[in-house]
Amino acid sequence: MGDMVRIIGIDPGLRRCGWGVIESAGNRLSFIACGTLTPDTGNSLAMRLAEMHAGLGALIERFRPDEAAVEETFVNQGARSALLLGQARGVALMTPASRGLPVGEYAANLVKKSIVGTGHADKDQIQLMVKTLLPSASFKGADAADALAIAICHAHHRAHRKLVLGA
Amino acid sequence: MGDMVRIIGIDPGLRRCGWGVIESAGNRLSFIACGTLTPDTGNSLAMRLAEMHAGLGALIERFRPDEAAVEETFVNQGARSALLLGQARGVALMTPASRGLPVGEYAANLVKKSIVGTGHADKDQIQLMVKTLLPSASFKGADAADALAIAICHAHHRAHRKLVLGA
Repeated sequence: MGDMVRIIGIDPGLRRCGWGVIESAGNRLSFIACGTLTPDTGNSLAMRLAEMHAGLGALIERFRPDEAAVEETFVNQGARSALLLGQARGVALMTPASRGLPVGEYAANLVKKSIVGTGHADKDQIQLMVKTLLPSASFKGADAADALAIAICHAHHRAHRKLVLGA
Repeated sequence: MGDMVRIIGIDPGLRRCGWGVIESAGNRLSFIACGTLTPDTGNSLAMRLAEMHAGLGALIERFRPDEAAVEETFVNQGARSALLLGQARGVALMTPASRGLPVGEYAANLVKKSIVGTGHADKDQIQLMVKTLLPSASFKGADAADALAIAICHAHHRAHRKLVLGA
């Protein structure tokens, strides 16, 4: 199937970085794998970012996604939190891009809208819908589910762009 | 000289990322090289971060520094600017760390204090003092001078730590 694309979704974070890999072919989605990277909080910031980079790099090697998608970090906790989140997000964007993958960015409320139908869904609703869209997915906790939701959002928008552009 | 250490200072930025390499032996500093990376602003954020990562990686390959130093980004322009700066800073911290270099972080006013003697120096004062401390340094613009100032700050604090710890 020439239309099939494998997507890695990334929910960046310095403590917990969710990831999820899916395949999309036409309007069919399949679950491949998901999980959470947890850089050692005892290490320096630079080391934790390096761990995150190495972890994401190993996942790209292992699952060979064609494209990546990263959530646009939601900034509502002041400049200091934004700086911390930005550091994790920089590594999440850079790692797939430096391996030649196109990287899509999606605002948090767009991700929610793609999955649940509204931009104001809570964590439980997202997990429920991810489980409905990807019945074979098994995930522990919100980070991996969020990453799968980001990958699904990318699959939807990618299909839509193709339709619009007639490509 | 077993005491000699080569340091790369990095002033992270998405438009202009300054870098400077010095050598420190005892209380003697030597200029090695400096410059500015300018990721293509026509590219996506992910691609610009990948360019920055590749550029810093190539500098580390070329100049083989033993340690790295990065300025703690000064956050005074709201959460959105902090997020953008954080992304560049994440890559600046991660790139040397993922190559095994210890990475020092220094607040902007500590860097200024190390160089000029006060935490409130302007760009011109910093460039003048960097030129005084590293007479053979030639740099165009503030970014490379700032990166050299960060490397000098690291050299000073490193020597001080050694003294204090008796190592």
